[in-house]
Order: sequence, then C-alpha cells, then structure tokens
Amino acid sequence: MSDQPDNEPFFRSRWVEEPPGVEQIDAAVLPTGFRAGAVHCGLKGSGATDLGLVVCDEPQMSSAILLTRNAAAAAPIRVCRDHLDRDSIRAAIVNSGNANAATGEQGMVDALAMRDAAAAALGIEPGGVAVAETGVIGVPMEMDRVLGAIDRLAGSLSTDGAVAFSEAIMTTDKWPKRCTLRAGGVTVSAQAKGAGMIEPGFATMLCFVQTDAVIGRTAGALDEAAAASFERITVDGQMSTNDTLLLQASGSSGLGLPEGLLDAVLLQLALEVVADGEGATRVGRIEVKGAADAAEAELVARRIANSPLVKTALLGRDPNWGRIAQAAGAALAGSDIGELGPDVISADELAGAQREAELGLTLDRGEAAAHVYFSDLTHEYISINAEYTT
Amino acid sequence: MSDQPDNEPFFRSRWVEEPPGVEQIDAAVLPTGFRAGAVHCGLKGSGATDLGLVVCDEPQMSSAILLTRNAAAAAPIRVCRDHLDRDSIRAAIVNSGNANAATGEQGMVDALAMRDAAAAALGIEPGGVAVAETGVIGVPMEMDRVLGAIDRLAGSLSTDGAVAFSEAIMTTDKWPKRCTLRAGGVTVSAQAKGAGMIEPGFATMLCFVQTDAVIGRTAGALDEAAAASFERITVDGQMSTNDTLLLQASGSSGLGLPEGLLDAVLLQLALEVVADGEGATRVGRIEVKGAADAAEAELVARRIANSPLVKTALLGRDPNWGRIAQAAGAALAGSDIGELGPDVISADELAGAQREAELGLTLDRGEAAAHVYFSDLTHEYISINAEYTT
Repeated sequence: MSDQPDNEPFFRSRWVEEPPGVEQIDAAVLPTGFRAGAVHCGLKGSGATDLGLVVCDEPQMSSAILLTRNAAAAAPIRVCRDHLDRDSIRAAIVNSGNANAATGEQGMVDALAMRDAAAAALGIEPGGVAVAETGVIGVPMEMDRVLGAIDRLAGSLSTDGAVAFSEAIMTTDKWPKRCTLRAGGVTVSAQAKGAGMIEPGFATMLCFVQTDAVIGRTAGALDEAAAASFERITVDGQMSTNDTLLLQASGSSGLGLPEGLLDAVLLQLALEVVADGEGATRVGRIEVKGAADAAEAELVARRIANSPLVKTALLGRDPNWGRIAQAAGAALAGSDIGELGPDVISADELAGAQREAELGLTLDRGEAAAHVYFSDLTHEYISINAEYTT
Repeated sequence: MSDQPDNEPFFRSRWVEEPPGVEQIDAAVLPTGFRAGAVHCGLKGSGATDLGLVVCDEPQMSSAILLTRNAAAAAPIRVCRDHLDRDSIRAAIVNSGNANAATGEQGMVDALAMRDAAAAALGIEPGGVAVAETGVIGVPMEMDRVLGAIDRLAGSLSTDGAVAFSEAIMTTDKWPKRCTLRAGGVTVSAQAKGAGMIEPGFATMLCFVQTDAVIGRTAGALDEAAAASFERITVDGQMSTNDTLLLQASGSSGLGLPEGLLDAVLLQLALEVVADGEGATRVGRIEVKGAADAAEAELVARRIANSPLVKTALLGRDPNWGRIAQAAGAALAGSDIGELGPDVISADELAGAQREAELGLTLDRGEAAAHVYFSDLTHEYISINAEYTT
C-alpha cells in the first residue's frame, strides 16, 4: 500500500498484495451510500465511546455476514443467525463493553430490543439490522443505557464517521483497526476489533466492511475474501462466541468490485488483528507445500501456527526448525513422513524477525498447499490472562 | 499412597486410586528378575549420568511397548517399531543427551549399533533390546562415547539400580520420576522422564515399567493402563518424536497382577510428568460428562485442557468458567449447544488452587465422559522456550 495517511496505525504487511492502481485514502471517509457514528452510552466505565452504528442509505444494497461457528454462541450471534435478512443488512449496531454472552433468555430479549430500537431510529425493517456485542460475559446488559442512547447514536451518523465507529468497537485493542482503499473508481472501507482480552475471558473479532461497488453474489465475495484473510489467522487457537464479519455493498458507484481490492482490505485488517493479538510482538506466516490434499495442508499449517513451541520461537527469534518438524509430525500422527530437517523446513527468518517472519515446510506427499498467519506467544500474554483475575 | 519414602519426590496425587493393601517401597528396589544401572558416557557436558540400562534376567518374561505416533519419528522409535521382538523385550538401553532425531540414515545405523552392542554385552538377541534416546535433535550421535561405555554400563547393573537408572534418563526434569508399589505379593516399579525443554526443542516422555507379575496379555495390560494415565495428560499439546513407554513382566512372583496396581504406578508417574512440565506450577483435571459419545467427550476435554486461556486461568487462580465455555463451544464448532454457564461448569477449585484443581463440564448431549490432566501455562514456560535460543 502507498503512503501512510494520518491516523493510520502500525505496519503495512509485506503479505498484502495491492491491486493495480490502488490508493489508500483517509480511513474516516466511507464509500458513497454509507454513514457511521458512535456515542458513549455508559457500558464502558472509562467514558470512551461504546456504542457504534453503521448504515447503508441505499435500499437496493446487498450484504453478507459470517458468524462464529462456536457451539456456545452468544445472543447477538443467534439474533443475526435466526432473525436477519442476510442479503439486505442495512445497518449494524455494535456495543463494546458487554458481550451479552451466557446471559440466557434475557440476553436474547435484550439483543432483539437493540435491533428493534436501531431499526426504529433509522426507519428500516428490524430484519435489516445486525447486532454485534463484545465485552464481559455472563453479565446482564444495562439496556436502559443502550436504549437511552439510540437517538443520540442515530444523530451521530455522518459520511466521515468511520474513525469514530472504529474507536467505539474497541475493547482492549491497542489501536483502532481500519483501512480504506480505492481502485478502479470503487472504494472499500473496513473497521475491525481484534483479540484483546475481554474480562472474563473472551477474545472477540468483529469486522465491518463497506463498499460502493455493485456486487452480484455478495455472500460468495465475502466467503472468498474471508477464506484468504480472517480464516487464515490465529492468535491462540481460540474461537470466540461473538465473532462477526459483515460486508455491505451500496452499489452507489455503479461499478463492479476490482479484483483483489476486497481481499487487500480484509487481509490488512486480519493481519492487524494478529499483530494486536494478546501480548503479540510479531506475526509469522507458515506455508506448507507438498501436502496430500488441501485438508492435510491446512491441518499441518494450523498445528504449526498454534504450537506454543513455534510461537515462543517466534518471540525468541530462534530459527528452531525442530519445533516445526515436531508439530508437523504431530499433525500427521499415525502416518510416517520420515524425518524432517532443514532441507525441507525454512525457519531462517525467525533469527532476525522484526515485525514479520515467513516460515515454510515442503512435504513430499502431493501438490496441496496452505498458509496460516499467527502471533508469537509472550510473557505479556501470560500476564494479561493470568494476572488480572475476575 | 501411604508413607513418603526417602528420595520420593513431590506430591501424591488425590487422583491416584490405591489398590487395597498397597504399600509404597524404596524406589531403588526393582521387582525380582530385574537389574538396572547407569553410567556417564560423555553425552552430557555436566558429567551427570547419561546412559542407562534395564534388563530382565528371566528369559520367559513378557513385554509390551508403546511408541510415539508422531509421523516424523526419530531413529530409535523406528528401530523399536521395525526391529524389535515386542513380546520379549529383555532390555532397554537409553541415552539422555541426544535424541538421535532428524539424523538421517546415520541415525538408524547408530541406533542399531547401540542395540547390538547392548545385546552383545548382555548375551541376548538384538531383537530383545529396545533403544530410547532423548536430548538435542539434528546432531549426529557421538557413538564412540556410547559404544566405549557399554561394558561399564553392563557392569553397573544391580537389583537396586532403579534410582541410578531414573536419574540417568533425566534431561531438564526438575526431579527424577520413579515409583515402586507392592500389593498382593506383586511389585511394580517404574521410572520416567518428562517434558522438560530439550534443545533445540523436543519435549520427550520416556517411561520404563517393571513387574514380577505373570501377565498373560502384556500388550493389553499396557494399553489399558496407558489409556488411563499417559494418554490422559497434556503439557502443551505437543507430541514428541521420541516418546516411549515400555512394560516388562518377569513373572518371577508367579502371581497375577492385582487390579489397579499397574494403573496406580502409571498414573502417579504421568501426573508427575505433567507437574514437572515446562514451567508448570499446578495440575488441573477437567472432566467432561454428558457428551454424545466417547470421541466427543475426549475432543471437548482436550480442547479445554489445551486452551491457553484455561491454562493461564489455572496459573492465575481465576475461576473463569467463561474460558471453559468458550473452549467447549469451539470444540463443537458448527453445532449448537446453547450457552454454557456456571450451572453446568464447575471452576471453583481454580480460585484456591494449590497443587491441583479439578474442573468439570456437564453437557446434555448423551452419557459419555472423558477427563484430561493438564499443566498451567506460565511465564517460566515462555522463558524456557523463548529465551534460551539455539
């Protein structure tokens, strides 16, 4: 990506392929047809904004949403799964402060009330409003605070509200995660929050994506871009009860989505989520080649990426190929792949790793390949998760 | 278990069920029919013993061996897998200092040479000698040191050599792991080494078990006892290239194995391996009940036991049921188990955890149950694995 605008955090990853002619623009600006806003309603004791809203003003828009597959999903996930018109999600209301998870029947009532209040304030169908929540679990929602702030929230909407929105969805993120890219007359913007520690223990990933492109198969486009970004990352192998990824396309540009534009935005934000993982200092990329099939390649890559021995080697800048061999052998337990040594494992980048390190393993079992991005495992991860008890 | 003899390390676990009339005896003493010994051959720079030998002098003995399923297994594993009479393993030769892993063709030649030299010194068939090795990987064996010490090693054998043997197989273990129990006229002794960090990164578990019982189906007895002990533990979810568990039965007592005796010895040593895991300060036990089937119960229990969030909660004495819910939901991703709260999760023992804490989760999907023992995840784990680089 090109120049670093104001407020644009952290790194641009070497792993993000830019589409031809791309320009990165002010992340506050939303694509045509969108408005966003945020207020402090009182869920966060700090006084920081904790309620966000993003809306597409074009009724002929299209949308797609991906939700956590966690079997113990939180109320907002179940609302989105069962009470939403997925192809036409006009708006999303998001709180940061309370995950509304493990809150029983009342949690569902509250999540539906949030949806309905936002729909009423916006004058749209309740089935057109997604609900996302992140924060403490097992604690009842303070619904008077949320509902009492809905009109103010609707009043805060503006076409350059993306920065405010990206800040309102943060929990323990070290920096807001947002990115706006333009190519071929089309703009894609996105705001995400990542896997910071959320008392008492859920690490939720939320990401909201807006574009003025015309997208025919929105769900297909989102599936594809997510498969190459948010589905390729791991911080600590955990899966939240609240993960949500929403794509909204206003169609206002009248143009199709340039190839690679959505992918670039999503991969950049996915990598920021990893880079801002709990205690993380570095991001690794492991690519496994020569696997028997795609499932095997994925299995081996994930086993390596989630290995605490590999993750501590990334922290310690230790080009320890033996740990990669061990993890690969464990992934394929029960078969025999012979011994794996430095002739088929590339771990050299660990030695001088700064922000990023690329690792590789070449098996000789077939033609399939897979890669996974992961964070290192650090003392701060232990401190965050062990020292601040509930 | 009853009184704590000299040299008997650490704790007796509340989770080990003692068979009726059991007595714990001096762990140096081997069951009738066995001798063990150890020498320093020079693989360890420290001068500590690094070559051990255990032998059964009763030709009509029986045996069974379990080997790592890691697909990138080390040379000694492949020697034991392909070149051993598993039913009649008279002896085991063990070095600590070099894992002989990722050492290519020469590694196999060296492991076979160790086996042959030990067999010659003992006057038994080469197919009756198991080889186990643990230590650095990717480094050629210093075979002159090993072979030059074989006669001395054979000369060190004695009927009370179990302490020396247990010390010779240690790498970064904080204490030697050994246990001898007697019940119903039968003695079972065992020596183990655990998951200490082994430069550059393998954590190998070795365990050698001797009994004077007459065992008909030795492999069946070992499978059963291992399934309730060494197969129920996890330190960091990693699987070594060198793990080995050997059971030898001399039959010298003329008596059958009392029920629960082998299980008690193996579970005690397995728990010591967890308790002495890298950086570990506590051992947790998670029991999952009400699963649809045994595989599901196992999957959920392992996911919880390997969750870094649960492991740091054990360190932080944080009764954080949300982390258990999250891990269980992730294990069953794609299905819907509703929200899991403190009504079905027991995490209270985390709050005051000293050495051990017992956790529980009751699903409502069926009748199956499974449990797993695990260590906490600590700053020392990070230090061990990140700060001492290769």
